[in-house]
Amino acid sequence: MIISRRAALKRMAFPLAAIGLPERAGAEVRRSGQDAGTPAQAQRLRKIATEEAWTTPEVAEALRGVVRRGGRNLDLTLLRSIYDAPAGTPPRFLSQLLDAERLRLAEMDAYGVDMHLLSLTAPGVQMFKPDVASTLARLSNDRLAEIVRRHPKRFAALASFAPQDPRAAAKEMERAINTLKLSGFIVNSHTDNAYLDEPRFWPILEAAQGLDAPLYLHPRAPSDGMAEPFRDYRMESAVWGYGVEAGTHAVRLMLSGVLDRFPRLRIVLGHMGEALPFWMWRLDFMGAPGARAAGRPNRLKPSEYFKRNFAITTSGVEDPLALRFCIDKLGADGIMWAIDYPYQPTAPAVQFLESAPLSDRERSLIAYGNAERIFRIGT
Amino acid sequence: MIISRRAALKRMAFPLAAIGLPERAGAEVRRSGQDAGTPAQAQRLRKIATEEAWTTPEVAEALRGVVRRGGRNLDLTLLRSIYDAPAGTPPRFLSQLLDAERLRLAEMDAYGVDMHLLSLTAPGVQMFKPDVASTLARLSNDRLAEIVRRHPKRFAALASFAPQDPRAAAKEMERAINTLKLSGFIVNSHTDNAYLDEPRFWPILEAAQGLDAPLYLHPRAPSDGMAEPFRDYRMESAVWGYGVEAGTHAVRLMLSGVLDRFPRLRIVLGHMGEALPFWMWRLDFMGAPGARAAGRPNRLKPSEYFKRNFAITTSGVEDPLALRFCIDKLGADGIMWAIDYPYQPTAPAVQFLESAPLSDRERSLIAYGNAERIFRIGT
Repeated sequence: MIISRRAALKRMAFPLAAIGLPERAGAEVRRSGQDAGTPAQAQRLRKIATEEAWTTPEVAEALRGVVRRGGRNLDLTLLRSIYDAPAGTPPRFLSQLLDAERLRLAEMDAYGVDMHLLSLTAPGVQMFKPDVASTLARLSNDRLAEIVRRHPKRFAALASFAPQDPRAAAKEMERAINTLKLSGFIVNSHTDNAYLDEPRFWPILEAAQGLDAPLYLHPRAPSDGMAEPFRDYRMESAVWGYGVEAGTHAVRLMLSGVLDRFPRLRIVLGHMGEALPFWMWRLDFMGAPGARAAGRPNRLKPSEYFKRNFAITTSGVEDPLALRFCIDKLGADGIMWAIDYPYQPTAPAVQFLESAPLSDRERSLIAYGNAERIFRIGT
Repeated sequence: MIISRRAALKRMAFPLAAIGLPERAGAEVRRSGQDAGTPAQAQRLRKIATEEAWTTPEVAEALRGVVRRGGRNLDLTLLRSIYDAPAGTPPRFLSQLLDAERLRLAEMDAYGVDMHLLSLTAPGVQMFKPDVASTLARLSNDRLAEIVRRHPKRFAALASFAPQDPRAAAKEMERAINTLKLSGFIVNSHTDNAYLDEPRFWPILEAAQGLDAPLYLHPRAPSDGMAEPFRDYRMESAVWGYGVEAGTHAVRLMLSGVLDRFPRLRIVLGHMGEALPFWMWRLDFMGAPGARAAGRPNRLKPSEYFKRNFAITTSGVEDPLALRFCIDKLGADGIMWAIDYPYQPTAPAVQFLESAPLSDRERSLIAYGNAERIFRIGT
């Protein structure tokens, strides 16, 4: 209903960079529809950004400890620049990550972004010892719930959990949905170089399915067992390694048959689906049940899993052609807009959403309609 | 000129599966144009398939030795099924790989495929000791030159070389072009887990550039240093691992700056560009020279290298949407049709080429025009 009511709204012809609407103005404009005061306001596009990074001082401090312990893990390079920058180097992103209500709300207002779906930034709690990880996940979820309670029209949030301890994770996932009323979960790909298709992680998948809440499978740098070719030229990062890591994780979920065991699991992939939509023909040809399936217990074709169990976001891929490809391949119902704040700038992400050649229906689904439905975000 | 003369030819509305034209009939029909006998023949689309696998008994025997020595290398799984299948299991693909003039020409005739651009199948000579590798590359190139001499209208070929010995490789590359008149080179991604951006391989890149002949960067399974997540569910193979391996190799070439050193190097990627076209926006955003470039000596944006130094083929991705995306992203001038015989069946590859929604100009470029220009294939 929400979608069809909103589908009538016209899209903005130009970015609204200069318009800083008050907190509830967007909703009121939507309700008043054609009667709104100015044409710009009448046509204002509701925008929910769905992969927006945030952290707590406690997690930042714990990551500083991880960096100082050192090692060969490929996430350490970026983590060092954020959490343990050499004296004299300005730390990157940290003030934005630690903030919700000051820098962030101002930026959202400046660009007409209605909501951020907040999540603890990568690698979450996944590099900590299990007990520390569980404690920091709970603390982070409490803080996020508090922010959402204070600003229910501006923030929703995904819960973290510690895959290091799957039973504790499942318990925290239950609390995050039923008590804290958060909107789903986020996991940053591998944990200690292991992937969620491994049976020891099944309690996590079972909890996500049972709670009917989506699991955002966010990247991190490639796991140690595939790290070597990514050690040069900063290839471990968003330029290439993140997509390989998260995409490989998603393919493992499809080919392992774990989605036959948890057929109602809903997974969200960022970065335009980590290129899996583009690979889908080959994934199906080579990965369908049948002659080539030796060693692969999956009962469905990858594209069947993808359409049933996955949704994607546009984070970090502000390419109208790639977006059109994904709509034509998957339909517009499983695609959500994201900025990836503060790692990507807000202005071009908004410009992309507002100017990409889309139908009104497609644009409203991608801008907010799908996020409201998939993450159960109220209006 | 070739292209514009042929651009007037209408495309086939239906596959020509049943028409087995004699060897020169295609060329004659093309020359006679509108005057040809039947409408079907008048509209016949010339087709050059550009990633077509072949081998010699000597290479097959040497690969059997590699399989029997065993180890953890991820190519061994497929190699075992082809070259050392257990008693009672029919060996896969081997009779087609060892053949050019019997099974293959009959299949080409059956589906109206004018030419195969032959190449020694993956992993080529790259798993042999350097002296064996160099010897078998020379032998393979001699045999290919002989096949091309016997059937100049039906076969062209790419030369192999042994990256294990870069100086010997460069020498063989010179012989392959200047003496044997082959059409370019093929390399199967990593050699002993090393990539072509490493300075010790620069003589190979220098030779390819100096000889003005393209280098087909073909996949193999992921190198040992990134193998672990691919060890389950046959993920090392064409379903996922090949694309990750070859794509990672290509990104290394772009981000290492090696294409600044060899600005006229021409690289061909199969499998619809190993998804790099789809990743191009993010590659540019994160991998362009500038603020995020620490550790990356590349002077150009990835998309600038890609358009200048790369061409792609459609092997294994018979997806009209993916093809359209690549045309819109890169232009039709750098896209060539391929079957990947005998690993992919000919009939659907021909059907894909003939039925994809393309303009006449796009279809003739992709079917043969680009291959004639890029690989200098005569008509």
